Amino acid sequence: MKIKEISGGVCAPVGFKANGIHCGIRKNKVKRDFALIVSDVKAAAAGVYTSNLVKGAPVVVTKSNLSDGYAQAIICNSGNANTCNKNGLEVAKEMCKLVSGVSGIKEEDVIVASTGVIGLPLDITPMKEHINVIWEGLGDNSDFASEAIMTTDTVKKSVSIEFEIGGKRCAMGAIAKGVGMVCPNMATNLIFLTTDVAITPAMLQKALSDDVKDSFNMVSVDGDQSTNDTCCILANGLAGNKLIDSVGADYNKFRKALNYCTVYLSRMIAKDGEGATKLIECNVTGAASKTIAKAVARSVIKSSLVKAAMFGADANWGRVLCAIGYAGVKVDVEAIDVSFTSKKGEIAVCKAGYGIDFSEEIAKEILLEDEVSININLNSGKVKATAWGCDLTYEYVKINGDYRT
Amino acid sequence: MKIKEISGGVCAPVGFKANGIHCGIRKNKVKRDFALIVSDVKAAAAGVYTSNLVKGAPVVVTKSNLSDGYAQAIICNSGNANTCNKNGLEVAKEMCKLVSGVSGIKEEDVIVASTGVIGLPLDITPMKEHINVIWEGLGDNSDFASEAIMTTDTVKKSVSIEFEIGGKRCAMGAIAKGVGMVCPNMATNLIFLTTDVAITPAMLQKALSDDVKDSFNMVSVDGDQSTNDTCCILANGLAGNKLIDSVGADYNKFRKALNYCTVYLSRMIAKDGEGATKLIECNVTGAASKTIAKAVARSVIKSSLVKAAMFGADANWGRVLCAIGYAGVKVDVEAIDVSFTSKKGEIAVCKAGYGIDFSEEIAKEILLEDEVSININLNSGKVKATAWGCDLTYEYVKINGDYRT
Repeated sequence: MKIKEISGGVCAPVGFKANGIHCGIRKNKVKRDFALIVSDVKAAAAGVYTSNLVKGAPVVVTKSNLSDGYAQAIICNSGNANTCNKNGLEVAKEMCKLVSGVSGIKEEDVIVASTGVIGLPLDITPMKEHINVIWEGLGDNSDFASEAIMTTDTVKKSVSIEFEIGGKRCAMGAIAKGVGMVCPNMATNLIFLTTDVAITPAMLQKALSDDVKDSFNMVSVDGDQSTNDTCCILANGLAGNKLIDSVGADYNKFRKALNYCTVYLSRMIAKDGEGATKLIECNVTGAASKTIAKAVARSVIKSSLVKAAMFGADANWGRVLCAIGYAGVKVDVEAIDVSFTSKKGEIAVCKAGYGIDFSEEIAKEILLEDEVSININLNSGKVKATAWGCDLTYEYVKINGDYRT
Repeated sequence: MKIKEISGGVCAPVGFKANGIHCGIRKNKVKRDFALIVSDVKAAAAGVYTSNLVKGAPVVVTKSNLSDGYAQAIICNSGNANTCNKNGLEVAKEMCKLVSGVSGIKEEDVIVASTGVIGLPLDITPMKEHINVIWEGLGDNSDFASEAIMTTDTVKKSVSIEFEIGGKRCAMGAIAKGVGMVCPNMATNLIFLTTDVAITPAMLQKALSDDVKDSFNMVSVDGDQSTNDTCCILANGLAGNKLIDSVGADYNKFRKALNYCTVYLSRMIAKDGEGATKLIECNVTGAASKTIAKAVARSVIKSSLVKAAMFGADANWGRVLCAIGYAGVKVDVEAIDVSFTSKKGEIAVCKAGYGIDFSEEIAKEILLEDEVSININLNSGKVKATAWGCDLTYEYVKINGDYRT
């Protein structure tokens, strides 16, 4: 299947408009903090959410609103997570009502999300005062929406593609935010996907739930699973393809398109991890099972010592082996090979569990790149898995040492 | 039972001598890197070890040597972990032989340990050349041994106490090292305890195994479980108390003395965590079970975001709740109270799962202290647990970004 990257973000598919403005939730006077995405018609909708027991109020409301499998709009603010507040549910519902009031869309068809500090009451007033402004500015403004959902993100995270299903041109777009408190178990931080593919809510949910296991759930910036993780997709059917209502060739094409977008954003989220200077990809091969492959990849990508070594471009592979050893799954240590790669080349550092001679200079050159892979062959089977993360830097500590002030 | 702190470290109990010298494993010409502890007579011995699948060669040899429940000496080097090396076992056994050669102690009665970089062959030559020097200098030199086992530790970690069992004056001493790669599951890094109490190997092992669950296993600096964690105790019986061979009043006294030393060192290890500026203690109360209490305490103490907030003296309690929420155990979020304490006082920040008004200024003053407690009442039962950790700082990143060079 041919997938082509195009411009447009969440507005790339037919029938979607977006906008993002500064409404005043953030003290910073410039940064957009209020986003809206709307489909021309009601869309099939699916979501995956944080498994943290402490859940943001918007997560609870969105889950309930998506229970019938349909939605038409997404409202989101940054600057406040609306979590652990007494009136949180009330405010989240009020946000849906704002969209309803200005658009006529039923409030139960609105997806609501918030991101930012936990535990401070979210004042609805700035959004109430600006709902007309954001509504009237709706258009081909995915970038504004993308900016509005950022917190300490340093880059806008967006992707859009086109592809064919059943001879019809289809498109998919997505925006995401996520830099810290990133260690998803059901989805990561905020990700909103749009598509004009015609697909039933049940198949859409299946596609999304299956996909995140190998995409967003394999990302870790700091091992802290957010209270507000939400990944939602709207599929409005305007591409005119034959409705996908079961597993088959068309469904598989849809899965590939979806996976293209989710892996693209997983890598972007990892690379923009708070304070990160580089993307780290951990490729595990030769595993006896998927469980083992994923556990090893996640353990290595989460290790503070591995992350700090990558920051220092230090080929300290002993820390990689150490993290494999405490991953909690059975591996044969004396079968493990480890190498590092980047666009500068590959260097083997460990064979069959023991260190081998290698050039520290060449290793340094490879590890100084801004995208580095740690390759682990367990030599015990044929299953593989990939996880994405980033290095641990002074900047991470700085950002998180005084986030609220 | 009255416990009194005394001087002497591992030499405080009757019949123990120690020494530590620079033999040349480390390039640094000053730092001691070679330690020896010897009992005048054969002693009951017990150990707990890393559960990391990647195990240092010395761990394997020590386990085997302690299988009969007795030992008489401890040899240890720093600067090289002797782990993931092809000739690791050979070198570890050779170290035991060195002790045997100079002392006449059977090599199977020697405990061997190494700490430092993983994956570089350990050259036995400097130890071979200095075994006579270290042997001849044996005496009341616990501090030298303590210094010799340090890696990036900034302070020597030692404690010694006296107490009474059955009318006899007994003593216990210990030295420890541990700053990074600290997240024990069976013991933490290197801890050597000595005592003159008379106790059977079986009861000694039971006491140690039970104790570490609530002491060293509740410490985390960076979530990385070391490949070389070893905690061993020698009990030579020279205090002359009636042999402790079963559970009872004397055993309980011994457990209390042991716990005094292990908690003392747990706090020292946490406070001296790599780059740390402060000790963080997480006290969980009101839990429905021990499993829940411990999981919550460990999750909070391990959270990078909580650790960074503590570094910034930022009362960001939302991160504490977040870490409770992903601890993997069932808690009633809407019952949770959180407060922070230090010697400057206590401040409540969260009641029944929601934020409450509090003075940021007073909170800052409390959190600026070098020993801070995070207090979590789950209000769901009567069980409690404590975990120890430290803040996450620029210095941690600096130390670990280029540890090997």
